[in-house]
Amino acid sequence: MEYILSERVKTLKPSAIREIFKYAADPSVVSLSAGNPAPEAFPVKQIAEISNKILTENPTAALQYSVTEGYPPLKKAIWEYMKKTYNIGTENDELLITSGAQQAMDLITKSTVNEGDTVICEAPSFIGSLNSFRSYNARLCGIPLENDGMNIECLENALKNEKNVRFIYIIANFQNPSGVTTSLQKRKKIYELAKKHNVMILEDNPYGELRIRGNDVPAFKSFDTDGIVAYVGSFSKVLSPGMRLGFTIAPKDIVQKMIVCKQGEDVHTNIWAQMVAEKFMTEYDFGAHLKHLRDIYRKKADFCMGLLDKYLVPNKISYQPIDGGLFIWCRLPDGADMVNFCRQAVQRKVCVVPGNAFLTDESEQCSCFRINFSTPTDEQLEKGIKILGELAKEVL
Amino acid sequence: MEYILSERVKTLKPSAIREIFKYAADPSVVSLSAGNPAPEAFPVKQIAEISNKILTENPTAALQYSVTEGYPPLKKAIWEYMKKTYNIGTENDELLITSGAQQAMDLITKSTVNEGDTVICEAPSFIGSLNSFRSYNARLCGIPLENDGMNIECLENALKNEKNVRFIYIIANFQNPSGVTTSLQKRKKIYELAKKHNVMILEDNPYGELRIRGNDVPAFKSFDTDGIVAYVGSFSKVLSPGMRLGFTIAPKDIVQKMIVCKQGEDVHTNIWAQMVAEKFMTEYDFGAHLKHLRDIYRKKADFCMGLLDKYLVPNKISYQPIDGGLFIWCRLPDGADMVNFCRQAVQRKVCVVPGNAFLTDESEQCSCFRINFSTPTDEQLEKGIKILGELAKEVL
Repeated sequence: MEYILSERVKTLKPSAIREIFKYAADPSVVSLSAGNPAPEAFPVKQIAEISNKILTENPTAALQYSVTEGYPPLKKAIWEYMKKTYNIGTENDELLITSGAQQAMDLITKSTVNEGDTVICEAPSFIGSLNSFRSYNARLCGIPLENDGMNIECLENALKNEKNVRFIYIIANFQNPSGVTTSLQKRKKIYELAKKHNVMILEDNPYGELRIRGNDVPAFKSFDTDGIVAYVGSFSKVLSPGMRLGFTIAPKDIVQKMIVCKQGEDVHTNIWAQMVAEKFMTEYDFGAHLKHLRDIYRKKADFCMGLLDKYLVPNKISYQPIDGGLFIWCRLPDGADMVNFCRQAVQRKVCVVPGNAFLTDESEQCSCFRINFSTPTDEQLEKGIKILGELAKEVL
Repeated sequence: MEYILSERVKTLKPSAIREIFKYAADPSVVSLSAGNPAPEAFPVKQIAEISNKILTENPTAALQYSVTEGYPPLKKAIWEYMKKTYNIGTENDELLITSGAQQAMDLITKSTVNEGDTVICEAPSFIGSLNSFRSYNARLCGIPLENDGMNIECLENALKNEKNVRFIYIIANFQNPSGVTTSLQKRKKIYELAKKHNVMILEDNPYGELRIRGNDVPAFKSFDTDGIVAYVGSFSKVLSPGMRLGFTIAPKDIVQKMIVCKQGEDVHTNIWAQMVAEKFMTEYDFGAHLKHLRDIYRKKADFCMGLLDKYLVPNKISYQPIDGGLFIWCRLPDGADMVNFCRQAVQRKVCVVPGNAFLTDESEQCSCFRINFSTPTDEQLEKGIKILGELAKEVL
């Protein structure tokens, strides 16, 4: 039989990162291409304790069908935490638990974007979200990212000239892949532009809790007096990605439609995971856990940046120092063949992600690559970055 | 701000069942409207044992990111079980783990249905799937369901006359809501028609393992020599719905696109749940567990049908006896006002689901309602059905 595929998936491809993962599965390869939390960051003992307690005291609730909106005590815990810690959430907003933050991107797109409508995003940006937008046939419009956020002039032009712009997608803290944090000044400016053009902001914040130095910059959602921001949070980096737990806090009208879409997508999110997260937030010292995570990642990030200073910078590869998150964005000198550099790195058994994978059009020119420091061990980091340095010395 | 919603969600509504659930939450109400497995059907002790073992021996794997396709040992266990038990799966097929069977419906629709394309389904059919199809702006074409499956003449006409039919959606065993099992003869006929018209069959089989008497009828997928059937299975009724675990076995070309869509939808399914299911299938006596479930449901179904014979049948409400599944379809006499009957039942604190909720067009006439016997206790069943009988005596 000749299979007929929908127009929206005909051109969809697995992400380039996934293809690279195939090499990374070879145990002799040093993978700097993943985005996994450090294994030592998982609160294994507490999760086992909580899980045991739930399956002893309340097994039926953890195994039975639940409501699409999410486990009410978890919704309450997140709502209170976000309000108190970040001033996020108003009486016009509603909270929805999602199966990872990824599902929030999917549900918001499904609820607000017609085929052919435009989504504005940072260039580069997170592939998973871009693919989610693409899967609804959204037209992607990338705005060049500077060291303090989107280029405002380009954003303004896009908002003026693009048709049917539905939202601006921003990872404002320690962006994936660039590591950039959007400045408060730019956040305010972007907010005003979005408001003026009647366009929503989709604020994706998976790394916000992983700040290793400096002060938090207020979230878009914290000054959203006009109800134009949909905020998305995640438990993947602060608890466990395998649990697939995320949430959105967004205007009620949008969330109501997202709930109906979620009902048709997976009915509800795994309820055991929701119960574990709730107990972890309310019966354990969540603040101390976050501090512990920041300590782990500060150490790993600083170690990694030290290696970059030692092996790459002297060999013409520059990078933007980071204040948090899991990624560092490295830049080859102008004119260097980045894709070829990444390919040769793989031949020497080091995987990094070529930067063009994060562009709205993968065929565009890009001189950067992304490395991750949370997944590899210190030994692997040193080995991998040293090899990249040797390669750079030879070919750049 | 005025929120702009996509065309596909503008007319989407929460399912009628969910609205009824709001009444059912009142503890003084007897709910015969749910579809939850009986709480005593959960293998709580085994799940707790397995979970404990996983979180002790292999916590990182249970908490870390995993692959979109599904946990390889679980894929292997399901593949072998389905092949051995039901002769399902060929070398041209691939297996994908989904976040509940519901997600398989979503992914198949996303991968194969353009907006405005047609999906043929049984009338009545499962609301969750219909809403999933609707959420991609599919046009639904309902084929009247008879006691042994779809009306073949109507199906043939639909396949001839409808444009861009993408698949035929069938719950062939103990259908929700009707309880009907499609006969082998009709399965063969439907398969031939689908093949002739180059249309896929989406075979949804959440209840197949819950046969309480008689012999299994071969699945469409078991004689799918032409690669036109996508089979969907679920762990919701045989292990736990709260875990959100399902799977599809379908032609590789389709599954490959479903995987890319799943990546953008939730990255992967909760991995702890996948690991638990795998150990339960391979290290415990899965067959004995299924037998235990069938014993539970046989007893409950027979008890329920006894009550229907006692209280409803003498009061002009007929029903179709069932051989499995969780639902019984009750029919009021011609001309009776079914919606009003259900409303009056709610006032007397008994919830059933009005049959029109399961039609492709809810405004169509329907004289049936659905009752569920797996969720209520025996006492609740007796109380609820007795009240329905009293109501029937008064108003029919």
